[in-house]
Amino acid sequence: MDIDAIHKALANPVRREILQALKTPKQYFSDQVHPLEFGVCAGLIDRHLALSQSTVSAHLAVLQKADLISSYKVGQWSLFKRNEATIAAFLEQLQQGL
Amino acid sequence: MDIDAIHKALANPVRREILQALKTPKQYFSDQVHPLEFGVCAGLIDRHLALSQSTVSAHLAVLQKADLISSYKVGQWSLFKRNEATIAAFLEQLQQGL
Repeated sequence: MDIDAIHKALANPVRREILQALKTPKQYFSDQVHPLEFGVCAGLIDRHLALSQSTVSAHLAVLQKADLISSYKVGQWSLFKRNEATIAAFLEQLQQGL
Repeated sequence: MDIDAIHKALANPVRREILQALKTPKQYFSDQVHPLEFGVCAGLIDRHLALSQSTVSAHLAVLQKADLISSYKVGQWSLFKRNEATIAAFLEQLQQGL
Protein backbone atom coordinates (compact mmCIF):
# COMPACT_ATOMS: atom_id res chain seq x y z
CA MET A 1 0.00 0.00 0.00
CA ASP A 2 1.49 3.32 -1.12
CA ILE A 3 0.30 5.75 1.58
CA ASP A 4 1.87 8.77 -0.15
CA ALA A 5 0.10 7.98 -3.44
CA ILE A 6 -3.22 7.42 -1.67
CA HIS A 7 -3.07 10.77 0.15
CA LYS A 8 -2.06 12.51 -3.09
CA ALA A 9 -5.00 10.89 -4.88
CA LEU A 10 -7.41 11.94 -2.12
CA ALA A 11 -6.13 15.53 -2.07
CA ASN A 12 -8.62 16.49 -4.78
CA PRO A 13 -12.40 16.99 -4.46
CA VAL A 14 -13.22 15.49 -7.87
CA ARG A 15 -11.34 12.28 -7.08
CA ARG A 16 -13.08 12.03 -3.71
CA GLU A 17 -16.41 12.54 -5.52
CA ILE A 18 -15.59 9.72 -7.96
CA LEU A 19 -14.91 7.36 -5.04
CA GLN A 20 -18.16 8.47 -3.41
CA ALA A 21 -20.19 7.85 -6.57
CA LEU A 22 -18.62 4.40 -7.04
CA LYS A 23 -19.59 3.53 -3.45
CA THR A 24 -23.29 3.36 -4.34
CA PRO A 25 -23.28 2.80 -8.12
CA LYS A 26 -26.95 1.83 -8.26
CA GLN A 27 -27.84 5.29 -7.01
CA TYR A 28 -26.12 7.06 -9.90
CA PHE A 29 -25.56 4.60 -12.72
CA SER A 30 -28.63 2.35 -12.72
CA ASP A 31 -29.10 2.87 -16.49
CA GLN A 32 -25.81 1.12 -17.33
CA VAL A 33 -26.16 -1.88 -19.65
CA HIS A 34 -23.26 -3.90 -18.14
CA PRO A 35 -23.82 -5.28 -14.63
CA LEU A 36 -22.62 -2.73 -12.06
CA GLU A 37 -20.75 -5.50 -10.22
CA PHE A 38 -18.07 -5.29 -12.93
CA GLY A 39 -17.74 -1.53 -12.40
CA VAL A 40 -18.99 1.70 -13.90
CA CYS A 41 -18.25 2.83 -17.45
CA ALA A 42 -15.98 5.90 -17.64
CA GLY A 43 -18.52 7.67 -19.86
CA LEU A 44 -21.19 7.48 -17.17
CA ILE A 45 -18.75 8.88 -14.62
CA ASP A 46 -18.03 11.80 -17.02
CA ARG A 47 -21.77 12.46 -17.29
CA HIS A 48 -22.33 12.22 -13.54
CA LEU A 49 -19.59 14.77 -12.84
CA ALA A 50 -20.40 16.91 -15.90
CA LEU A 51 -16.70 16.92 -16.75
CA SER A 52 -14.85 16.14 -19.97
CA GLN A 53 -13.66 12.66 -20.83
CA SER A 54 -10.00 13.70 -20.69
CA THR A 55 -10.35 15.35 -17.26
CA VAL A 56 -12.12 12.36 -15.74
CA SER A 57 -9.70 9.97 -17.43
CA ALA A 58 -6.76 11.74 -15.76
CA HIS A 59 -8.44 11.55 -12.35
CA LEU A 60 -9.26 7.85 -12.83
CA ALA A 61 -5.60 7.18 -13.68
CA VAL A 62 -4.45 8.81 -10.43
CA LEU A 63 -6.98 6.81 -8.40
CA GLN A 64 -5.96 3.61 -10.16
CA LYS A 65 -2.23 4.27 -9.64
CA ALA A 66 -2.96 4.62 -5.92
CA ASP A 67 -4.82 1.29 -6.10
CA LEU A 68 -8.03 2.93 -4.82
CA ILE A 69 -9.92 1.73 -7.91
CA SER A 70 -9.39 -0.99 -10.47
CA SER A 71 -10.55 -1.31 -14.04
CA TYR A 72 -12.08 -4.12 -16.03
CA LYS A 73 -12.17 -4.20 -19.80
CA VAL A 74 -15.39 -5.31 -21.53
CA GLY A 75 -14.98 -5.00 -25.30
CA GLN A 76 -14.29 -1.33 -26.00
CA TRP A 77 -15.45 -0.24 -22.53
CA SER A 78 -13.42 0.26 -19.38
CA LEU A 79 -15.39 -0.28 -16.21
CA PHE A 80 -14.15 1.10 -12.89
CA LYS A 81 -14.84 -0.01 -9.36
CA ARG A 82 -13.53 0.75 -5.89
CA ASN A 83 -10.83 -1.42 -4.33
CA GLU A 84 -12.59 -1.87 -1.01
CA ALA A 85 -9.68 -3.90 0.42
CA THR A 86 -7.17 -1.07 -0.15
CA ILE A 87 -9.60 1.58 1.12
CA ALA A 88 -10.31 -0.41 4.30
CA ALA A 89 -6.60 -1.11 4.90
CA PHE A 90 -5.78 2.58 4.39
CA LEU A 91 -8.47 3.72 6.85
CA GLU A 92 -7.29 1.15 9.39
CA GLN A 93 -3.67 2.26 8.99
CA LEU A 94 -4.64 5.93 9.36
CA GLN A 95 -6.76 5.28 12.43
CA GLN A 96 -3.80 3.55 14.08
CA GLY A 97 -0.95 5.61 12.71
CA LEU A 98 -2.11 9.22 12.72
CA MET B 1 -11.17 22.08 7.65
CA ASP B 2 -9.21 22.02 4.37
CA ILE B 3 -9.34 18.34 3.36
CA ASP B 4 -7.15 18.89 0.28
CA ALA B 5 -4.43 20.58 2.37
CA ILE B 6 -4.57 17.85 5.02
CA HIS B 7 -4.14 15.04 2.47
CA LYS B 8 -1.29 16.94 0.79
CA ALA B 9 0.38 17.39 4.17
CA LEU B 10 -0.01 13.70 4.98
CA ALA B 11 1.35 12.57 1.58
CA ASN B 12 4.89 12.64 2.95
CA PRO B 13 6.57 10.15 5.31
CA VAL B 14 8.59 12.79 7.19
CA ARG B 15 5.48 14.82 7.97
CA ARG B 16 3.66 11.69 9.14
CA GLU B 17 6.67 10.89 11.35
CA ILE B 18 6.57 14.40 12.88
CA LEU B 19 2.90 13.92 13.77
CA GLN B 20 3.73 10.51 15.25
CA ALA B 21 6.56 11.89 17.39
CA LEU B 22 4.36 14.74 18.64
CA LYS B 23 1.72 12.20 19.66
CA THR B 24 3.88 10.89 22.52
CA PRO B 25 6.30 13.77 23.19
CA LYS B 26 7.47 12.36 26.55
CA GLN B 27 8.81 9.33 24.70
CA TYR B 28 11.10 11.38 22.47
CA PHE B 29 11.59 14.82 23.98
CA SER B 30 11.70 14.28 27.74
CA ASP B 31 14.91 16.35 28.00
CA GLN B 32 13.16 19.54 26.88
CA VAL B 33 13.36 22.43 29.38
CA HIS B 34 9.95 23.94 28.56
CA PRO B 35 6.89 21.91 29.63
CA LEU B 36 5.88 19.53 26.82
CA GLU B 37 2.25 20.63 27.23
CA PHE B 38 3.18 23.82 25.34
CA GLY B 39 4.65 21.81 22.49
CA VAL B 40 8.02 20.57 21.30
CA CYS B 41 10.88 22.85 20.26
CA ALA B 42 11.70 22.70 16.53
CA GLY B 43 15.36 21.99 17.32
CA LEU B 44 14.46 18.80 19.17
CA ILE B 45 12.30 17.68 16.24
CA ASP B 46 15.29 18.27 13.90
CA ARG B 47 17.48 16.14 16.20
CA HIS B 48 14.86 13.37 16.46
CA LEU B 49 14.54 13.12 12.68
CA ALA B 50 18.25 13.73 12.03
CA LEU B 51 17.28 16.30 9.43
CA SER B 52 18.39 19.89 8.86
CA GLN B 53 16.62 22.83 10.47
CA SER B 54 15.49 24.18 7.09
CA THR B 55 14.05 20.83 5.94
CA VAL B 56 12.11 20.31 9.15
CA SER B 57 11.00 23.94 9.18
CA ALA B 58 9.47 23.52 5.71
CA HIS B 59 7.63 20.35 6.79
CA LEU B 60 6.34 22.05 9.96
CA ALA B 61 5.03 24.93 7.83
CA VAL B 62 3.05 22.51 5.62
CA LEU B 63 1.60 20.75 8.67
CA GLN B 64 0.71 24.08 10.26
CA LYS B 65 -0.91 25.41 7.08
CA ALA B 66 -3.12 22.28 7.06
CA ASP B 67 -3.97 23.04 10.72
CA LEU B 68 -2.62 19.63 11.81
CA ILE B 69 -0.22 21.32 14.25
CA SER B 70 -0.06 24.69 15.94
CA SER B 71 2.88 26.67 17.25
CA TYR B 72 3.46 28.60 20.45
CA LYS B 73 6.17 31.19 20.85
CA VAL B 74 8.23 31.19 24.06
CA GLY B 75 10.94 33.86 23.85
CA GLN B 76 13.13 32.89 20.90
CA TRP B 77 11.70 29.36 20.73
CA SER B 78 8.82 28.03 18.67
CA LEU B 79 7.08 25.06 20.23
CA PHE B 80 4.89 22.77 18.11
CA LYS B 81 2.03 20.52 19.12
CA ARG B 82 -0.66 18.47 17.37
CA ASN B 83 -4.10 19.93 16.80
CA GLU B 84 -5.98 16.92 18.12
CA ALA B 85 -9.35 18.49 17.29
CA THR B 86 -8.52 18.85 13.59
CA ILE B 87 -6.96 15.38 13.43
CA ALA B 88 -10.03 13.79 15.06
CA ALA B 89 -12.44 15.71 12.81
CA PHE B 90 -10.45 14.68 9.72
CA LEU B 91 -10.45 11.00 10.70
CA GLU B 92 -14.19 11.15 11.40
CA GLN B 93 -14.86 12.84 8.06
CA LEU B 94 -12.74 10.25 6.21
CA GLN B 95 -14.39 7.32 7.97
CA GLN B 96 -17.80 8.63 6.89
CA GLY B 97 -16.92 10.10 3.51
CA LEU B 98 -14.49 7.70 1.88
